[in-house]
Amino acid sequence: MPELRKDPITGRWVIIAPDRAKRPTDFQSLPKPAAEEFCPFCEGNESACPNEILTYRNHGSMPNQRGWRVRCVPNKFPALKIEGQFENRGVGMYDVMHGIGAHEVIIDCPQHETRFSNLPPANIREVLWMYHDRLVDLKQDRRLVHPMVFKNEGAAAGASLEHAHSQLIVTPVVPIQVAEEMRGAKEFFGWRGRCIYCDMIRQELDDAHRIVLDSANFVVFCPFASRFPFETWILPKRHSSHYETVQEADIDELAQVLKTTLQKLEVALDNPSYNYILHTAPFHADSFDLQSYHWHLEIIPRLTGVAGFEWGSGFYINSVLPEEAGEFLRRTEV
Amino acid sequence: MPELRKDPITGRWVIIAPDRAKRPTDFQSLPKPAAEEFCPFCEGNESACPNEILTYRNHGSMPNQRGWRVRCVPNKFPALKIEGQFENRGVGMYDVMHGIGAHEVIIDCPQHETRFSNLPPANIREVLWMYHDRLVDLKQDRRLVHPMVFKNEGAAAGASLEHAHSQLIVTPVVPIQVAEEMRGAKEFFGWRGRCIYCDMIRQELDDAHRIVLDSANFVVFCPFASRFPFETWILPKRHSSHYETVQEADIDELAQVLKTTLQKLEVALDNPSYNYILHTAPFHADSFDLQSYHWHLEIIPRLTGVAGFEWGSGFYINSVLPEEAGEFLRRTEV
Repeated sequence: MPELRKDPITGRWVIIAPDRAKRPTDFQSLPKPAAEEFCPFCEGNESACPNEILTYRNHGSMPNQRGWRVRCVPNKFPALKIEGQFENRGVGMYDVMHGIGAHEVIIDCPQHETRFSNLPPANIREVLWMYHDRLVDLKQDRRLVHPMVFKNEGAAAGASLEHAHSQLIVTPVVPIQVAEEMRGAKEFFGWRGRCIYCDMIRQELDDAHRIVLDSANFVVFCPFASRFPFETWILPKRHSSHYETVQEADIDELAQVLKTTLQKLEVALDNPSYNYILHTAPFHADSFDLQSYHWHLEIIPRLTGVAGFEWGSGFYINSVLPEEAGEFLRRTEV
Repeated sequence: MPELRKDPITGRWVIIAPDRAKRPTDFQSLPKPAAEEFCPFCEGNESACPNEILTYRNHGSMPNQRGWRVRCVPNKFPALKIEGQFENRGVGMYDVMHGIGAHEVIIDCPQHETRFSNLPPANIREVLWMYHDRLVDLKQDRRLVHPMVFKNEGAAAGASLEHAHSQLIVTPVVPIQVAEEMRGAKEFFGWRGRCIYCDMIRQELDDAHRIVLDSANFVVFCPFASRFPFETWILPKRHSSHYETVQEADIDELAQVLKTTLQKLEVALDNPSYNYILHTAPFHADSFDLQSYHWHLEIIPRLTGVAGFEWGSGFYINSVLPEEAGEFLRRTEV
């Protein structure tokens, strides 16, 4: 059983998941990305994955067999497990909790496509629906607190399989970085009665320097205090705290916006590895959170390593002006 | 002039240092570690670095020439600069500050040694003294708030030159992660009247599972909530908030403890890249901080990549039990 441990100083939770572990002696070099011939995510290889949780399939096809378009399965090496009782105990001065949660893999497409942005908008749209449907379902489990949907594309971004896929981890506590965002947004709201992200959208659109793309209902920009070169955020213009409340028309538009944004990054930066992370409010947020928090997608191209200074301080050094990155991406034709 | 920008949501500061930047088009692949023939850090090549700030030299040798043992120079591509006036202004809803600070490089030895732990204890001792002397000096500049001393060894840890060296960045604000540590330690102290690190040392020594090394005045262990496999901390047993108040006998012992700890990690993990970071209180801490904060060294072997989930959440997944890592390192003979 994986467990969650809390750093008693900062309050940061860590998942200790030795099920995923190799022996200490297996750590003697950096893991290499698997360049396997056999891809467990390809259509026809369904039996190589645990049984599917939710799948969008063509009429007449059978569960765990060919004929699907987007497929969600449990992670074979889960960092958290859905079975078991919630338990929170002390170990001397330390706090520890059973690693209850969900760890799922969303296989974005049946064919062996390694670049997500190559998928047609209709396919990306179904991946975005899958995020929605899984969140709506998992939200019913009251043990689960916070969902994190993310994508690692490319070895430098931590992908261990190249077939396009997304992941979903749902934790029984609010992760520290999300808690900080929520707290900051709530403080701003408490003082001004406005959502800080809505204010940011207005200032970015007025200022225009850092805008990458401006569509009817979404805005894409490089944030003023970008931690990484070419860090890029996608926000819905209409205030909304929870991704799972997204409307159909918005998902259609977001599929195109996401595809175009990723293509711009890929053309501008020669196909970098990247991560994107959906930031959405914890499942059972209070009414202040609903008003103060604003879901969004953060895309981080993995161009530079992160060295000791960043680890030690949480203080990032970014060598590219966000205004230059924004302009460069805005002008990149795809 | 580099600038500091504050993320308006979380309060995290970012250094935007475009002086260090390449053009956007230069970002089209991951930077490779330079495998240069010419090493600017080797004895005899002093003129390849900016003029030295402080050097421990042999009698009769001249500044910026041969005959030194440990040498501190300004970083040639500084993320922060010492010249200029402190200035803090608003840009609409955002906060921005001149990038005043220090960014120095400490060249650990004159010969081309790429592995710090290979240096004799007497050499490591002088590196530790250099950390001390630079902090004592920089503390006099009232514009400077927080010093961060760190080492990146190996390409996977972000080292761009292989000759053993350390770095020192002093910021005009307290980095968010340090602020979190300080706040957590202060809250614990406020409630219990004890230093949380001192309590942790007592519990770790009693428990013994995670202890790597126990010397007269220092203890080395894998923390209970380790973020990374084989994360290892070195703490002085005697309470002390500021590294720059360290005593001579302690530095002698720390040199040996640090060397042995690094050797254990290198033997156990086949010479991994690693970062270590000195965590010490901000220069001008208040009397509560003096009582509640405890300086220490955190060593992070770079065994696994950090993927999207970690970036998005600050929620780390560690696949090695800290008890197993501690035992493995404790038993590793060097």
